[in-house]
Amino acid sequence: MQWYMGEQVGEFINIGILTSSDRASSGEYEDLSGPAIVGFFQEALESPWDSISVVVADNQEMIEAALIELIDEQGCSLVVTTGGTGPAPRDVTPEATESVCERMLPGFGEQMRAVSLKYVPTAILSRQTAGIRGSALIINLPGAPKAIRETIDEIFPAVPYCIDLIGGPYVVTNTDVVDAFRPKHARR
Amino acid sequence: MQWYMGEQVGEFINIGILTSSDRASSGEYEDLSGPAIVGFFQEALESPWDSISVVVADNQEMIEAALIELIDEQGCSLVVTTGGTGPAPRDVTPEATESVCERMLPGFGEQMRAVSLKYVPTAILSRQTAGIRGSALIINLPGAPKAIRETIDEIFPAVPYCIDLIGGPYVVTNTDVVDAFRPKHARR
Amino acid sequence: MQWYMGEQVGEFINIGILTSSDRASSGEYEDLSGPAIVGFFQEALESPWDSISVVVADNQEMIEAALIELIDEQGCSLVVTTGGTGPAPRDVTPEATESVCERMLPGFGEQMRAVSLKYVPTAILSRQTAGIRGSALIINLPGAPKAIRETIDEIFPAVPYCIDLIGGPYVVTNTDVVDAFRPKHARR
Repeated sequence: MQWYMGEQVGEFINIGILTSSDRASSGEYEDLSGPAIVGFFQEALESPWDSISVVVADNQEMIEAALIELIDEQGCSLVVTTGGTGPAPRDVTPEATESVCERMLPGFGEQMRAVSLKYVPTAILSRQTAGIRGSALIINLPGAPKAIRETIDEIFPAVPYCIDLIGGPYVVTNTDVVDAFRPKHARR
Repeated sequence: MQWYMGEQVGEFINIGILTSSDRASSGEYEDLSGPAIVGFFQEALESPWDSISVVVADNQEMIEAALIELIDEQGCSLVVTTGGTGPAPRDVTPEATESVCERMLPGFGEQMRAVSLKYVPTAILSRQTAGIRGSALIINLPGAPKAIRETIDEIFPAVPYCIDLIGGPYVVTNTDVVDAFRPKHARR
Repeated sequence: MQWYMGEQVGEFINIGILTSSDRASSGEYEDLSGPAIVGFFQEALESPWDSISVVVADNQEMIEAALIELIDEQGCSLVVTTGGTGPAPRDVTPEATESVCERMLPGFGEQMRAVSLKYVPTAILSRQTAGIRGSALIINLPGAPKAIRETIDEIFPAVPYCIDLIGGPYVVTNTDVVDAFRPKHARR
C-alpha cells in the first residue's frame, strides 16, 4: 500500500503483476521480472497506484485463476504478465489470457514483436497478446527484464486511453518517461 | 447513380460504405466519415462505380444485417466500414465483420495499425480487420476522416487484385492517386 | 538421402517441403518452388539434413493429410509449405496448417507480410502463418520462388531456436547465409 500527500494527479489505479514461471514459483530462482515491472510503474505513473504481485507456475488453469482473482476480486484495472509467451509446451500465458478475456487487442502483440525484432530475430517466436476482461486490460510482456523495459516503454503511451475507453480510472503518467496520448476530447 | 461517356476503363463496381456510429445514426451529429470515403473513391477510381451508403448504430446484429444486405442483395463487391473498431464495449464492427466473413485477411489490419502508429501511439488499440464474404471484400477503416484517408491511401493498391482473385470485377484506378499493383499475368 | 564425412556439426534434421498447387500437382507445369526451398537449405544448413518433397492439389484435406504424414510418420521436425496462402477460394494452405497445429505463432506471418510489403503492396493479401504440431514447426512461405527467398532469408534466424524449444534437433546453420540466434544459455 502506498500513500500520497498533496494534490492528487489523476485517479487511483490498482495494478496486477503476474509472473508466470515454474522456476520462480518453486523458489528455484528469484523473480526479477515482476520487480522490473514495478520499477517501470514507479518511474512512469503520476496517478496514485498500488500493485499486487503474484508468481505462479506455468500452468494454464493457475494463471487463469490468478488473472480472475486480480481483476474480479482485487479490482485491478490493469494486469501485466511476464513470461510464458514462447513456443515451448510449458508456455501457456497467451492461452490463459485469451481464455479469460472477452475481446482481444491484436495491435499490442504486433507492436511488441516489431519492437523486439530490432534487438533479436527470435522476437517473432513470441505469442504475446493483450485483451479486455470487463473494465480491465491484460497485457503480456516478455519474460526477460531487459525485453520488458524495451517493449513497455513503446506500448505504454496507448494504455491510459485504453483504460479510459473500457471504463477504468483516468491514469496520468510522468510525461518525462511516458508521453501518454489521448485525443483532445478525452483530455481532462 | 453515375453515368459515364466515352470509352469505359475497367469494369463496373458497386461499393458499400457503412458508417457504424450511435450518434450519427440517431442524427445527433452528421456523418463525415462516409462522405470522406466517397471522396476518396471519386479521386481514386477510373472504373465506373456506384456506391450505397448506410449509417447504423453500434449494434453487432444491425451491422451484420447491413453487411449481408449490401453484399448479398445489393451486389457490392467491396464494402468499406468506418467506426466501431476501438476497445470500448460499444465498438463491435470487427466482431460483425468476422461473423459474416468466410475467411479473414489479417494483413490489412496489421498494415493499417502500422500506418496509423506513425501518427498516434493509440493506433494499436484498433481492432480493424478485413475479410471475404463470397466474392466481396470487407475492410474496416478507422472512424475519423483524417485517419481514414491516411490508411486507405496505403492499403488500396492491394485492393483491385484482391477483388480479381475472389471473382469480382476488374477495377482500374487513377494511377496518380492509387498505383494499384497486379502481377504481370493478371494485367489486362 | 545425403551422407556426410568428417566431424558432424549440429544434429540431423528431417525437413518436409510441401508444394500446394493444382497445376503443379496435375503436371500442368513444373514445380519450381519446392526446389527453390531445397536450394535454400543446401546453402543455409551446416547440420546434416534430409528432405522429403511432396506436391499436392489445393485441397484442404489433402494438405492436412500430407502435413500429418510428414510429421507423424516421416519424422520431420520442420515442414515448409509453398503456395495456397492468397485470398482465392482454392487457397487453403493456412486453413490446413491451423487445423493440424496445436498452437499458432502469429509473428511469422506478420514478419513475412512486412518483408514482402517492401516489394509489392499486395503482400497484405497473404494469409501465411506458422504453427506447432508436437515437436515440429510448420511455416507457410509464399508461392513464387523469388518471394520464397526474400522471406525465408528474414525469418530463418529464428527457426533453429524455435525447434530447440519445441523439443526438436539442435540445428546449426552456415552463418554466412543465415545468422541463427540463440540466447546464451541455449548455445552448445
